[in-house]
Amino acid sequence: MSQLIATYLIHDQKGHFAKKAEGIALGLTVGSWTNLPLLDQEQLKKHKGEVLDIQELAEEDPLLGQKGIVKIAYPIINFSADIPAILTTVFGKLSLDGAIKLIDLDFPNDLKKTLPGPKYGVEGIREQLNVYDRPLLMSIFKGVIGRDSNYLEQQLKDQLLGGVDLVKDDEILFENELTPIDKRVKIGRKVLQEIYERTGKQALYAINLSGRTEEIKDRAKRAIENGATALLFNVFAYGLDVLQSLAEDSEIQVPILAHPAISGALAASPSYGFSYHLLLGKLVRYAGADFSLFPSPYGTVAIPRAEALKIALSCLKEDDFKQTFPVPSAGIHPGLVPQLIVDFGKDCVINAGGGIHGHPYGAEGGGKAFLCAIESVLSGRSLVEAAKEDANLNQALKLWGNLEVKA
Amino acid sequence: MSQLIATYLIHDQKGHFAKKAEGIALGLTVGSWTNLPLLDQEQLKKHKGEVLDIQELAEEDPLLGQKGIVKIAYPIINFSADIPAILTTVFGKLSLDGAIKLIDLDFPNDLKKTLPGPKYGVEGIREQLNVYDRPLLMSIFKGVIGRDSNYLEQQLKDQLLGGVDLVKDDEILFENELTPIDKRVKIGRKVLQEIYERTGKQALYAINLSGRTEEIKDRAKRAIENGATALLFNVFAYGLDVLQSLAEDSEIQVPILAHPAISGALAASPSYGFSYHLLLGKLVRYAGADFSLFPSPYGTVAIPRAEALKIALSCLKEDDFKQTFPVPSAGIHPGLVPQLIVDFGKDCVINAGGGIHGHPYGAEGGGKAFLCAIESVLSGRSLVEAAKEDANLNQALKLWGNLEVKA
Repeated sequence: MSQLIATYLIHDQKGHFAKKAEGIALGLTVGSWTNLPLLDQEQLKKHKGEVLDIQELAEEDPLLGQKGIVKIAYPIINFSADIPAILTTVFGKLSLDGAIKLIDLDFPNDLKKTLPGPKYGVEGIREQLNVYDRPLLMSIFKGVIGRDSNYLEQQLKDQLLGGVDLVKDDEILFENELTPIDKRVKIGRKVLQEIYERTGKQALYAINLSGRTEEIKDRAKRAIENGATALLFNVFAYGLDVLQSLAEDSEIQVPILAHPAISGALAASPSYGFSYHLLLGKLVRYAGADFSLFPSPYGTVAIPRAEALKIALSCLKEDDFKQTFPVPSAGIHPGLVPQLIVDFGKDCVINAGGGIHGHPYGAEGGGKAFLCAIESVLSGRSLVEAAKEDANLNQALKLWGNLEVKA
Repeated sequence: MSQLIATYLIHDQKGHFAKKAEGIALGLTVGSWTNLPLLDQEQLKKHKGEVLDIQELAEEDPLLGQKGIVKIAYPIINFSADIPAILTTVFGKLSLDGAIKLIDLDFPNDLKKTLPGPKYGVEGIREQLNVYDRPLLMSIFKGVIGRDSNYLEQQLKDQLLGGVDLVKDDEILFENELTPIDKRVKIGRKVLQEIYERTGKQALYAINLSGRTEEIKDRAKRAIENGATALLFNVFAYGLDVLQSLAEDSEIQVPILAHPAISGALAASPSYGFSYHLLLGKLVRYAGADFSLFPSPYGTVAIPRAEALKIALSCLKEDDFKQTFPVPSAGIHPGLVPQLIVDFGKDCVINAGGGIHGHPYGAEGGGKAFLCAIESVLSGRSLVEAAKEDANLNQALKLWGNLEVKA
């Protein structure tokens, strides 16, 4: 019988984990057990949740008590094959039950089959961009709220002239009079074409897909008809199920970038909510994101390095789905490239805002400095060495420094 | 100029709240300010976020440092009038920025006008049920997973014979072969009619509305066409925007009960996520829930009393919207009714599972015991006094006790 296995971090002042775990396994499935007549037990057996493992952790929380990891198996016949039903089963009422964190979900194969995974994935994206042997480079618009379309167009051009592979909208740029989505798509198509003709460089511009949930698909399709090459989606403002619908739609033939906006409310606490790697790794991948943006371990908006690496691992590891490109974001500048490649390898996206726009030679110089840094790391040269022959990188290192790599 | 005002609980080891607040106000709007040319400042002025208030709290968090409350105003021209855009603006990237909790949102009138609020509200529900002068009584199915439709039908009957005003599905009862939604709706229509003919009692049965987001409206409409009288909705498995769409739809002419499943992942931490009263009070009300279920301060799945009272207050207080019925849930038995009425007043729903089904005379006795307890409290009699003349209440108090009321 097929089971979905949930792993939780739980807390108990007295360390009564076995009782707690049994309460969860029953409470979220058949309700009660030992007091049921045998005939009922026979009938309900295949619906009963099961405690698979209980592990007491050595560390204690000063306020919440002893910590434990429990694994509970839920029969998949108890719920319909959709993410809202899955999450409500394993963490609906339970999320309200004190300090508990859902760390992981292991999907059985028959449940995986109902989910789409990324349409393109790492391999498909590399083909689209014709970039196979290095991390991708992405840049973000800066300060576009209240600015007109000329401003946006110029920024897009400057970024692309630096050689970046992708440019993404600011996730807080919604429908507005100055730069509505239709206008941005038009500008994107024009500028991407210009850059291609001038430099031969294929790039993508991810448009922020926003608005009401029930209009989101039509909006995506219209943007694509008009020439949008990628979509940025604030998945946690909408729900993973909406991402899944976008990924499943055969008319939506562009990559989807999942933005982590609001996910901190679900995952940032060490004791409550979801783990980041489950949300921003496994679940966005299963639901169909080609890229998953998440806080890097370097910037001011940071998550612990171990957690960031786990997100990337969940995006990439062997599974029934294509791979999702991990995009560690925030605080990225060219001097960090060696560390980024040590941490995330070649299959990641180096994504910068300030580290592109703040370059002394502008966004074009910023992009070029990054590409030079990437090339030098992959060819085994130090950044300092490479910077001697590259003014862009030289300027970047002067401004932001050259970080020592930590293993 | 119209502004949405967000109130946050923030933490800082050094108590540098002013700098942090200014960083939020700019970072989530125009990006930067002091280094902008005057001409740009002029152009961007109406888009700039503004720090309205900073308050240092006396208490400190042992790990997270000093606590502060900051209020930030966001110009509403920066975002489109939809909940995903609102939440992404005020708590998108910011939710990822360490220990920060969104406590409240104050909507300007022109933004409120874009939201539906409850279709029926407290007043409309009271009219439907013809109950004006007491808290409503609701009961929950127990242990229906893996059970067939006869079992469900008998439970529904037993609950309704006790005189409850509403019965709700278990929120983890999804589409399944034994009791699919179509069958449950049919059973509900039949049993509600029988009870009405037999006792003259009008009641509602809230069907769990589940499945994929894009099918949710059609599913709701089909259920209503077939006779469903109310909908239970796991709003946080879908998103507040989906609740809003259901509430706005003129063909969905039944009350909506918002279930708090998964909301603990967003609100249970004292330092991260949203406040419960914002999520389960203000936002579900604005988005259109006629009822909001939330953890009572009494049971094992409990939230602090002050927070539960704030949720209820947000559901009921003077606003541009109809009132949402507060439904404090979990751990409720007849002996708690005096405390419930002290805490939540007459405009609440007394909602019980075990406190109905676990009654020595069955669910019918449980419902009757509750109604007797409610009547006695409202007429100023003690439960002990009333129990002398009512065997159902007498049995209930024997089993669950009679709690002393705390002010």
